[in-house]
Amino acid sequence: MTEPVSAQQPNVIRIAHGIFYVTDLERSKYFYVDLMGLNILHETEGALYLRGNEDREWTLKLELAPEAGVKHLAYRVGTPADLDAMTALLDRQSIPYRWETELDRPKLLRFQDPFGVPVAFYAESVKHQWLLQDYHLHRGAGLQRIDHINIMTPDVEGVMRWYMDNLGFRLSEFTEDDKGRIWAAWIQRRGSVHDLALTNGTGPRLHHFAYWMPDMQSIIRLCDILAGARMPESIERGPGRHGVSNAFFLYIRDPDGHRIELYTSDYVTADPDFEPIRWALDDPRRQTLWGAKTPKSWFEEAAPLEAFKGGWVEAKAGELVGLPVHVI
Amino acid sequence: MTEPVSAQQPNVIRIAHGIFYVTDLERSKYFYVDLMGLNILHETEGALYLRGNEDREWTLKLELAPEAGVKHLAYRVGTPADLDAMTALLDRQSIPYRWETELDRPKLLRFQDPFGVPVAFYAESVKHQWLLQDYHLHRGAGLQRIDHINIMTPDVEGVMRWYMDNLGFRLSEFTEDDKGRIWAAWIQRRGSVHDLALTNGTGPRLHHFAYWMPDMQSIIRLCDILAGARMPESIERGPGRHGVSNAFFLYIRDPDGHRIELYTSDYVTADPDFEPIRWALDDPRRQTLWGAKTPKSWFEEAAPLEAFKGGWVEAKAGELVGLPVHVI
Amino acid sequence: MTEPVSAQQPNVIRIAHGIFYVTDLERSKYFYVDLMGLNILHETEGALYLRGNEDREWTLKLELAPEAGVKHLAYRVGTPADLDAMTALLDRQSIPYRWETELDRPKLLRFQDPFGVPVAFYAESVKHQWLLQDYHLHRGAGLQRIDHINIMTPDVEGVMRWYMDNLGFRLSEFTEDDKGRIWAAWIQRRGSVHDLALTNGTGPRLHHFAYWMPDMQSIIRLCDILAGARMPESIERGPGRHGVSNAFFLYIRDPDGHRIELYTSDYVTADPDFEPIRWALDDPRRQTLWGAKTPKSWFEEAAPLEAFKGGWVEAKAGELVGLPVHVI
Amino acid sequence: MTEPVSAQQPNVIRIAHGIFYVTDLERSKYFYVDLMGLNILHETEGALYLRGNEDREWTLKLELAPEAGVKHLAYRVGTPADLDAMTALLDRQSIPYRWETELDRPKLLRFQDPFGVPVAFYAESVKHQWLLQDYHLHRGAGLQRIDHINIMTPDVEGVMRWYMDNLGFRLSEFTEDDKGRIWAAWIQRRGSVHDLALTNGTGPRLHHFAYWMPDMQSIIRLCDILAGARMPESIERGPGRHGVSNAFFLYIRDPDGHRIELYTSDYVTADPDFEPIRWALDDPRRQTLWGAKTPKSWFEEAAPLEAFKGGWVEAKAGELVGLPVHVI
Repeated sequence: MTEPVSAQQPNVIRIAHGIFYVTDLERSKYFYVDLMGLNILHETEGALYLRGNEDREWTLKLELAPEAGVKHLAYRVGTPADLDAMTALLDRQSIPYRWETELDRPKLLRFQDPFGVPVAFYAESVKHQWLLQDYHLHRGAGLQRIDHINIMTPDVEGVMRWYMDNLGFRLSEFTEDDKGRIWAAWIQRRGSVHDLALTNGTGPRLHHFAYWMPDMQSIIRLCDILAGARMPESIERGPGRHGVSNAFFLYIRDPDGHRIELYTSDYVTADPDFEPIRWALDDPRRQTLWGAKTPKSWFEEAAPLEAFKGGWVEAKAGELVGLPVHVI
Repeated sequence: MTEPVSAQQPNVIRIAHGIFYVTDLERSKYFYVDLMGLNILHETEGALYLRGNEDREWTLKLELAPEAGVKHLAYRVGTPADLDAMTALLDRQSIPYRWETELDRPKLLRFQDPFGVPVAFYAESVKHQWLLQDYHLHRGAGLQRIDHINIMTPDVEGVMRWYMDNLGFRLSEFTEDDKGRIWAAWIQRRGSVHDLALTNGTGPRLHHFAYWMPDMQSIIRLCDILAGARMPESIERGPGRHGVSNAFFLYIRDPDGHRIELYTSDYVTADPDFEPIRWALDDPRRQTLWGAKTPKSWFEEAAPLEAFKGGWVEAKAGELVGLPVHVI
Repeated sequence: MTEPVSAQQPNVIRIAHGIFYVTDLERSKYFYVDLMGLNILHETEGALYLRGNEDREWTLKLELAPEAGVKHLAYRVGTPADLDAMTALLDRQSIPYRWETELDRPKLLRFQDPFGVPVAFYAESVKHQWLLQDYHLHRGAGLQRIDHINIMTPDVEGVMRWYMDNLGFRLSEFTEDDKGRIWAAWIQRRGSVHDLALTNGTGPRLHHFAYWMPDMQSIIRLCDILAGARMPESIERGPGRHGVSNAFFLYIRDPDGHRIELYTSDYVTADPDFEPIRWALDDPRRQTLWGAKTPKSWFEEAAPLEAFKGGWVEAKAGELVGLPVHVI
Repeated sequence: MTEPVSAQQPNVIRIAHGIFYVTDLERSKYFYVDLMGLNILHETEGALYLRGNEDREWTLKLELAPEAGVKHLAYRVGTPADLDAMTALLDRQSIPYRWETELDRPKLLRFQDPFGVPVAFYAESVKHQWLLQDYHLHRGAGLQRIDHINIMTPDVEGVMRWYMDNLGFRLSEFTEDDKGRIWAAWIQRRGSVHDLALTNGTGPRLHHFAYWMPDMQSIIRLCDILAGARMPESIERGPGRHGVSNAFFLYIRDPDGHRIELYTSDYVTADPDFEPIRWALDDPRRQTLWGAKTPKSWFEEAAPLEAFKGGWVEAKAGELVGLPVHVI
C-alpha cells in the first residue's frame, strides 16, 4: 500500500470477480474447466462459479443466457464501512445504485460508473480452502488467481480520472499519441501493475478478463492444450512479452468470444513516488516487446456490458480513431 | 494495501535495502555481480551499491570491513511525515535513534529495535532507470528485486508483535509447536507473503536476505552457474518448494557466509480478512513441500548485526530449543 | 548411428521396455497413471501396460504379484534377422534362452545375461497412435518416453564389456576410483548418453528405470504433485543436475519401492570418435553437479530380478566397497 | 542407429557445420556472440569460427565477404573410408568434386549435389573441450548444438530421394498437397527428426540453419534479449510449437538476413520401422500447432548458395506454386 486514504474515500482492495453470460454452459465448462483448468467452486442450475488455484473465493461466474455479454465486474473493498463511503460518494454524484446478492456474497453494491461500466463492490465473502498446494488436483494450464480486467472505452482519460480521483487508483503506465492524448492507461490499487486497464475503442465494452499464471511454461501449456483439443482458433494473440507491464501473456477467446488473458511476471508498484511509465502510441515494443504484430480483432472486438436498467450499454466510438502501427 | 492506517502510525511501504560488511570486495563482486547477476549502480572506494533488474534504487550495499556482518536493514516509508511519526513512536518508547545518510538516501532514521535489530527507515531516495527490459544487459541468474529479509531471534513472538502493533505489519503464516509457542512468523506490509520473516534461534542475527526471481528456471540457472564456477559448496539448500509461502527457493552462501535466498512464485495477501496460515513445527511439508531435509547449518548459522552503539549485537539463545524434524 | 556393425553382430536399437511385479495394482495405478501421468495402453486382469506421451508401444508393464521385483528388461533390435544373430551369439556362449510372448510383442527372446540380468530382445511390436500432440490428454507430470535403465552390479566392468563386445554398445561416461577400477559406466546404442547404466553395488538388481521428460518444469511439477498428494516420502533424490550426463533429474520410489528416474536435457553421442568422459569417484560434481549429497538409500536399495529358471537372481556384494563422498 | 548400411554406402553421421558469408563481421559478432550467445572457438583475419555450448567443434563459420550468402553446408561421415565411398559414389554419378581444407578440418570433400546444393563431407576434425558444464561462461540465450539445416528447393522430392537412396537418409515427416505432391520433407541420419529439411520454393537456397536449445525458456530469453537490444525486427517468426517435429521454435534473421532457427523438444526416430508422419499442405496445425500464421517472408526469402564453379547457384522457381493457408 502507499499513502493513507481519507476517511471519506472508500478503500478499494482489488478487482475481485466478473460475471459472464454464456450461451452454452456445457461448452463453456469444457473450455474453462477441462482445458484451461479453472476449478468449480459451485455449480447450480444455469451457473458455474469458478476460481483459480490460489483464489479463496469464486472469481468468475458463468451464467447461462440467450446472449453472451458481461453482467458486471466486481471490486473488493476493505470493510462494510467502505461500502457506506461508496454510497455516500454515489449520492454526492447522483449515481443510482442498488443492493444485490450473489452466492457467497450477501451484499453487493451494484451501479454503473459515469462511463457506463456495470460494477459491483462488496466487503464480505465466504472464504474457501484454496487449492494452491493441492498440486495433484491442478488441471489444464493451472490458472492461479484473478489479476485484472481491461475495459475498452472511447474516453480512456475520463474513466481513468474518475477511478483515480474518487477511488484512489494509481497510474502505472499509459500510452499517448503525439498530441498528448491518452489512448490507454493501467491503474491499480494493490501494488501490482493494474487492477483495471483502459484501452481506447468503441465502448464501454469488456476487452478482457485476466488471470495470473505461475510461470511462462503454464501459458505455453495452454497453447499446446488448445492445439491438442483441435481449437487453435481460440488462440487470438501471443504468447509474447508485453512492453507495457513487462508481462508474458496470451490472449484466448472462449466459445462465446469472451477474451481471457493469461498473464505472468510483471513488477511491483508499491512505492508512493512510483513514476508512471509513458509509451508512445506507435512504439512497436509497447504492445509486444518482441515487435510481434497484433491482430485487428484485438483492437475491434470486445464484449457488451449489461446496463443498470437492463439491456446492453450502448457502445460508442470515440474521437481517437485509427489503429496503432504493427497491426496484422 | 488493506485498511487505512491511523495518522499516528508510520506508513511502512516495504523492506528496501541491506548493508553487508564483506572482507574481500573483489571476491564479493565476482560472486554477486558476475555469477549472481546483480547490477552495479555505484562503485566507490570500499563499497559496491547493487540492485536487481527491476530495482530503481540500490538494494544491497557491500562495504569492505575487517569482519563480515550486517550494518543495518532498511525500510521505505511513505513520506517524510512518516519519519516524524517514527521518531514520535521511538520517543514514546524511549528508543534512541540518530539520522544517517547513504549514497542516494540523504536521510535515514537509524535505530535498534527493542529486540536488537539495527534498522533504518527512509522516505526519499534517488530513483534510477531500471534494467528490467534491458534484457541484453542481464547477466548471471538475473536477480529481479529485493523481496524480504529473515531475522533469527530467540523471541519470535516478541519481535512479531512489535512490528505488528507499532508498524502495522500483518501476519501471513506462522509455525507453532504443540504447546502453541511460535517458532517462526512471516509478516508483511505490501500485500506479498512477507517483508520480514522471523525464525527461532540464537539471535538476533540476519538469517537471510532474499531477492525475487522472474521464474524457477532462473533459480536453477544459478545452481548451474555456481557449479560451472566450481563453487557448488556455496549452494546450501534447495532448489525446492517451500510449504510456507509456496515459493520456489534456493539458499546460497556468499564468500563471507552471508545467506541469500532466491525466491519466486508465492501468493497475494491483499485482503484485510486474510487468515494467517498455521503450520505445525514438525510438519515435513512446512520447510520444503517436497519433504526434503534441511541442512543443520541452515538452523544454526546466521550473520552478526552491528549494534547501535557500535560493535556487534550480542546473540542469545532462546527457550525454544531443539530442531524440527527433517534436518540432515 | 555410428559405424556399420558386422553381419554377425545383432543390431540393438534401444532399451524398449521393463516389466515390474507390483503387489497392489490399484495403488500402483494411482501412482503411475494419476500422479505421474503415464498412459494406459492396455489393461488386463492383473496387468497394466503403460507408455509415455511419445511412446508408440507400451514401455512399462505392471504385473500383479505376491512380491515386488522385476521380471525382465527388454531391448528392441532392428529386424527378425537380428534375433537370429542373437541366438547364434547365445549358442556360441552356451547361454540358455527361450521364446516368450507379451501383448503386442509376439516374439521375445528371453535369457539371462552372463551377469544375471534377465533380458528380452524383440524385433516386432504393434505400434499405436502416439499421444505426443494430444496435449489436452496429458496428465500429471507428462512423462514422454522411455530413456534408459540402470543396473546395480558388483561387476560393472564385466557387464560393460559384455554389452560392448557382443552387442556394440558404446561408452559415454564412466567413474573410476584412484586405482583405475570402474565404479559406474554409461553405455548406449542410439546416440544418446545411455540405454544402460551400470552402478557398483550388491547385485544384479534394477537400480532404476528412467523416462525422458520434455523439460525441467515438468520434473518440478511431479515434486509438487507428489507433495500435493501428501506423498513427499516418495521423492528420494533431486531435483538436481547430474554431473554425469548433464541431465536434470529426479528419483522417486513407487509404492513397492521401484525407483523411477525422470530425466531430461542430456547431450548427443553420435560421433564414432566420441571420447568417453571420465569422472573421479569422489568428485562431488559427478553425482550432482551442484554438490548436493545423495541419500544412502540410493546406493543401497534396488529391485530384485527374476531368474531365468524362476525365483530371484541372487544378489552378491562386490569387492568395491564403501560409498563415495557426499552421501547424506 | 538403425539398419546396418551396405559397405558401398557412405556412413553419414550428421549435419556438422555451415559457412556463411557476412558483410560486416563486427556487426555479426555482436549478433551471434553477444546476443545469441554462440562461443568463439577461433577468430582469424576475416573469419569467426563459432560453436554452441555442447559443440566440441566449430559448427558455424562466418566469413567476411562483399555479398552475403552460403559457401557450403557440411556433413560428418564415420571414417576416412566413408570419404572413399563418397568419391566412388560421385564418380559413378559423374559428379565433380575437389578436396578442400578448413581450420581444424584438414580434409573436406567438396561438391555440389545434383540439385545444386554446395556440400562438404569430412571424417576428421580437431575436438575441443566443450563448454556444456561451464555454465558460468554461457552467455545470451545459450545455444547448445547444431541441429539441422533447411534447404528451399523447387524439387523437394528429387532432393529427398537422392539423399535417401544414396546416403541412407530416413524420412521422418512430409507435407503433401491433395494431389500427392511433396511440398516439404524432413530426413535424418542420427535418430533425431532431421539433419536436413526440404521446403518447396525458389531455389536451391538455404532457408535456415538451426541450433538445438536446452529448453523453451532459453528461446524466450532470446526474444527478450533482441527486444532489449532494440532489434525486435530480427525476430521473424515464433516463438511457437511446430506441428511438424513437435519442436518449440523461433526464427530470427541475422544482420545479413541469414535465417537461424532455435529449436528444442522434438522426438526420437531410432526405430527402423518408424512410420513417417504425413501432413496435409493446408492443415493449419502443420506450420504451427497453435494455428499462428506464418509471415510471407518465411516462404519467400532464403540465402543464395555458392556454386561449385564459383558465383551463386541460380535459383529457379518450381511447379508447386502458391502459398499454404495461414500466411500473414
